[in-house]
Amino acid sequence: MTNTMTPVSSVAGSDAGVDTAQLGELLLGRWAEVRLAARKLAGRPELHKVEGLGHVEHRERVLQQLGILVEANGVHRAFPERLGGTNDHGGNVAGFEELVIADPSLQIKGGVQWGLFGSAVLHLGNEEHQDKWLPGIMDLSIPGAFAMTEIGHGSDVASIGTTATYDAETQEFVINTPFRAAWKEFLGNAAVHGVAAVVFAQLITKGVNHGVHAFYVDLRNPETMEFLPGIEGLDDGIKGGLNGIDNGRLAFHNVRIPRTNLLNRYGDVAVDGSYSSPIASPGRRFFTMLGTLVQGRVSLNGAAVAASKVALKIAIQYATERRQFNAASDTEEVVLLDYQRHQRRLLPLLATTYAAAFAHEELLVKFDDVFSGAHDTDEDRQDLETLAAALKSVTTWHALDTLQECREACGGAGFMVGNRFTSLRADLDIYATFEGDNTVLLQLVAKRLLADYSKELRNLDFGVLARFVAGQAADLTLNKTGLRQVAQFVTDTGSAQKSARALKDEDTQRQMLTERVQTMVADVAGALKEAAKMPKDKGAAIFNDNQNDLIEAARAHAELLQWEAFTAALGRVDDAGTKRVLTRLRDLFGLGLIEKHLDWYLMNGRISMQRARTLSPYINRVLAKLRPHALDLVDAFGYGPEHLRAPIASGIERERQDEAREYYRALRASSDAPVDEKVLIAQAKAASKK
Amino acid sequence: MTNTMTPVSSVAGSDAGVDTAQLGELLLGRWAEVRLAARKLAGRPELHKVEGLGHVEHRERVLQQLGILVEANGVHRAFPERLGGTNDHGGNVAGFEELVIADPSLQIKGGVQWGLFGSAVLHLGNEEHQDKWLPGIMDLSIPGAFAMTEIGHGSDVASIGTTATYDAETQEFVINTPFRAAWKEFLGNAAVHGVAAVVFAQLITKGVNHGVHAFYVDLRNPETMEFLPGIEGLDDGIKGGLNGIDNGRLAFHNVRIPRTNLLNRYGDVAVDGSYSSPIASPGRRFFTMLGTLVQGRVSLNGAAVAASKVALKIAIQYATERRQFNAASDTEEVVLLDYQRHQRRLLPLLATTYAAAFAHEELLVKFDDVFSGAHDTDEDRQDLETLAAALKSVTTWHALDTLQECREACGGAGFMVGNRFTSLRADLDIYATFEGDNTVLLQLVAKRLLADYSKELRNLDFGVLARFVAGQAADLTLNKTGLRQVAQFVTDTGSAQKSARALKDEDTQRQMLTERVQTMVADVAGALKEAAKMPKDKGAAIFNDNQNDLIEAARAHAELLQWEAFTAALGRVDDAGTKRVLTRLRDLFGLGLIEKHLDWYLMNGRISMQRARTLSPYINRVLAKLRPHALDLVDAFGYGPEHLRAPIASGIERERQDEAREYYRALRASSDAPVDEKVLIAQAKAASKK
Repeated sequence: MTNTMTPVSSVAGSDAGVDTAQLGELLLGRWAEVRLAARKLAGRPELHKVEGLGHVEHRERVLQQLGILVEANGVHRAFPERLGGTNDHGGNVAGFEELVIADPSLQIKGGVQWGLFGSAVLHLGNEEHQDKWLPGIMDLSIPGAFAMTEIGHGSDVASIGTTATYDAETQEFVINTPFRAAWKEFLGNAAVHGVAAVVFAQLITKGVNHGVHAFYVDLRNPETMEFLPGIEGLDDGIKGGLNGIDNGRLAFHNVRIPRTNLLNRYGDVAVDGSYSSPIASPGRRFFTMLGTLVQGRVSLNGAAVAASKVALKIAIQYATERRQFNAASDTEEVVLLDYQRHQRRLLPLLATTYAAAFAHEELLVKFDDVFSGAHDTDEDRQDLETLAAALKSVTTWHALDTLQECREACGGAGFMVGNRFTSLRADLDIYATFEGDNTVLLQLVAKRLLADYSKELRNLDFGVLARFVAGQAADLTLNKTGLRQVAQFVTDTGSAQKSARALKDEDTQRQMLTERVQTMVADVAGALKEAAKMPKDKGAAIFNDNQNDLIEAARAHAELLQWEAFTAALGRVDDAGTKRVLTRLRDLFGLGLIEKHLDWYLMNGRISMQRARTLSPYINRVLAKLRPHALDLVDAFGYGPEHLRAPIASGIERERQDEAREYYRALRASSDAPVDEKVLIAQAKAASKK
Repeated sequence: MTNTMTPVSSVAGSDAGVDTAQLGELLLGRWAEVRLAARKLAGRPELHKVEGLGHVEHRERVLQQLGILVEANGVHRAFPERLGGTNDHGGNVAGFEELVIADPSLQIKGGVQWGLFGSAVLHLGNEEHQDKWLPGIMDLSIPGAFAMTEIGHGSDVASIGTTATYDAETQEFVINTPFRAAWKEFLGNAAVHGVAAVVFAQLITKGVNHGVHAFYVDLRNPETMEFLPGIEGLDDGIKGGLNGIDNGRLAFHNVRIPRTNLLNRYGDVAVDGSYSSPIASPGRRFFTMLGTLVQGRVSLNGAAVAASKVALKIAIQYATERRQFNAASDTEEVVLLDYQRHQRRLLPLLATTYAAAFAHEELLVKFDDVFSGAHDTDEDRQDLETLAAALKSVTTWHALDTLQECREACGGAGFMVGNRFTSLRADLDIYATFEGDNTVLLQLVAKRLLADYSKELRNLDFGVLARFVAGQAADLTLNKTGLRQVAQFVTDTGSAQKSARALKDEDTQRQMLTERVQTMVADVAGALKEAAKMPKDKGAAIFNDNQNDLIEAARAHAELLQWEAFTAALGRVDDAGTKRVLTRLRDLFGLGLIEKHLDWYLMNGRISMQRARTLSPYINRVLAKLRPHALDLVDAFGYGPEHLRAPIASGIERERQDEAREYYRALRASSDAPVDEKVLIAQAKAASKK
């Protein structure tokens, strides 16, 4: 299988060049010190994933590793100072997400213990609860589960079946699993290590169901590790990844717990059974309680970014060393990254990873603002929820795409578990559906976009409203009939704007990405306006007819958020050469989004056919310009060999290639070199012609 | 996280309905009996993958399983009748590919032993070689490796570094690995079980390199399993999947083998060292020898189809039982498959799986025609090569997409290894890059398309040529400037053709898909015409600039092949109701392709903006119409519980859902039901208004 390809010219513009140290600092962001400390920890061999370990051994190893994290004081930043923490929420997540490069199981089991189980006690409990349980949770003497999800209800927490019914006579709650679909499922620490759990259940007292609340429940006798009476459990066994975590199922049969085990910050039951809550609306109360879960989404977002970075560093390093095929020369093969297709495969993923990284930093700042109390209004919390849901969805999917593309781009070597891609991919697979299924999360984002869209209408006075609607309608007419497209086509002809080059303008990119979100939301809102007036079932049917468009609108919004974050980051770069390269990378991201949705832009008259046709070749030129900086751009991620641990990123491939070329060079120089039969045939042909 | 969605109406047209038995027969195809026998075998528990087995145990289990296949007479169909085979090449592959549903490791290790190692002896050796080695290969007393790929050269076999130099004095070949990049790599059976190998090496005799030939080489002492002198090996260890196969590396240091161990069907060396071959051209000789490899691609294609079928049966079964969320009713939740987004996720994959299945059957017939000798011209072999390369690429990628989408569509349950998706995905991951990297294979397809395109030009006389080129040019002008698009837009307005409904016409779909391939090839050919006249390096640079377009043209061709195969299969359906459903599914496939490449159709003036805007809503309506038949369409695949083995496809979810609904029904009917706090608040509000 020979082929005819050759390298594109790799000469960099002399005005562009990456200051990797400065770029590295920019990427480390506000919590640089915490990140560096966490990476140092993550570089320790005893924290690394051992491939091929059975799940039983892997679980024990990860439990031990959690102990090491405790000793290293690496996981208590979020807890109150009075209990030995530093009350540093942003830093806590920043440090936590770096641990994914040691072993995602370690990260997620830590997340279960401190980020979910511990956080629930911290955020939903009172000070007494915290003082009683947090020390043991923090030092790991109380490993615990976060028992929210049920078999029958994944993302739909409000509908869980588990009940906690108050018995005023004994001043106890009675926890029950009324049917099999209400078994708590997929709970880390449930199968083996958990001695307690925070259990989410419908709180029923005096014949009224007050909705989902959280209860602290002891699971096992810590001495014997036997289940306590009334508690039943099953081991989930082997999963597609994260096998260092002991996920399992739990059921409760008339399990009695003291009244005071209700984590009562947002809802309490008095001795006589009367219910009280600082939040009158059951709906708002539910969302406030679940709001503490946002931390999980924020940290998954960061972990997905970290895994993408590691994968791209490995694959791009290899692509600059590995040689394959050549038509232009019989003796020199071409480095993979000089192939256009290879650039097309890896560099857009690199651009998206940068966008995701900068967007994550903004998310983390927002998260810290809310959880530190600096900016903690209802609106802040809603913004945080929306931002986390939007970014977590696109970033976790992006990580899976990146890991897979990197794996394939490295061929068979990419399939060897030691080169990390397959192992990370298997572990991160579940990130797309846990802490909120991405598809459900995007619908939450869409709901918010629709609400904002209606609010805008609601808050405008009649005159402005009329203008707005008129403008909207005119706009729709123009685009729907394609007149604007034709107009643009006519304008473009013969003008300097007719090529995609014009799209490298920042404002143009912003306008195109923003208009797409606005128009998509407006289109769906238009369809749903009808639905709101109809009977429930018909309205729901219309909603369903627009579900796909709704999700795509939310995705477009998330991509815009990433683009804005990337663009904002450009303003923080001082070095001119770095800025130029990074701006090109941002252009690649922006233009890539436009290319991905080009059908939409064409159908909606936002780009002319003529300009659209130049987009793909223009992107190819941007790729060629970025090619010489690719290695710098992944080196700026700052991972050392202790983090990469991939033989193909160690320089071994270059050594092998150099050895082979030297062998052939020496052979050609010697008298021993065999003649190629093809050469003999050519010579014979030439001789016969004479 | 509540949400507001409700089911679309699931009422089927009374004129459409699937006869699953008849459809099942159609899918089984020409080798139905062999397939059913192989499925019976694949249903035996002792052949099933045991999840969580360490790789050492897994390898031993799979070796034992190969013995079971031998005993069951399940794997010898391709071999000559005189040695106990049935000389049935199509049947052999048909049976072989079904084994993937037992354990992909079992399938691929069988493929290494009989499909690669055994096939090389069969197709590249002479009758003496066959009689000497095939009996042991067939009965597994000679487990062997197929030593072609090297670390430094994956898909580029012509450039391998291993040498086999003839020594006339001893009448031996001396096999050597001259540098580390020339180590044979990723070889099944090399790490532990192989006692022999077919080694591909540059044949050098009398100072001339005659290119890559195959040699039979003993590796290990079968008693002690120690490597023979001069042979060095390494274990590849754990991989991303297929861990039941003992892949490893091999190096040869002056390993001497008898002259007669050259598998000499296409090239021989006489005692005195003189070389002879029935094929004069070294290039053609090389491709003829490698041509026997096509079997691997054909069977991977079939295995990828089988895995997609299993995944879709499991995910769609679950989607018809699993309920989640509801806005239209407080007591009834919606079955997942009634959500538009869920239909969007799964049903296009189902349509593509049908297309891939029918295309595979055509490939298999073509393969059998060539290998049985029924139609075995050079052109037939070239067609087969192209077809296999095209289909293997798109089908293996499709299988990975399908497994992943199914996994996510089943949420956390999809991540449990027992539900198959993650395990199959991990094992099939490598299918995208082995037996030819998909990206390289698509370039082979593109080369063929370009050659055909030039041939057409070449074979036409001047008058016709002039007309052709003029027509071509006119066409390009029309499309490139978008005039045709505008023209179509004008025509469409007010006509009955303005909606996507017109695209359900078979001829229209064919025309659109075909024109796209033709135009893409013509576009690239136009660019490459320049390249052919230029110096090698500049020409290669132009080739590289067009590499991405070239690959996309090949992919479009492969998709067209699938569409044509699906359409041809419709003609073989008798039952009117089945035909109607299947035609809709074909439409979904065809329209889905047009939607996927809608930007191209718009930019090239093949569809008006107006019609393009109706495409997505129209597809949504097709999805809703197919929804009621989804379960029938996956049931027609004919897999039993012994093949599916996924708890979530066992009906357990429906049982759980029914139990939960019955619990709530009974609770509502009783006097014990707690009142919802929200209801109390609403009542209080209502009361205060009075």
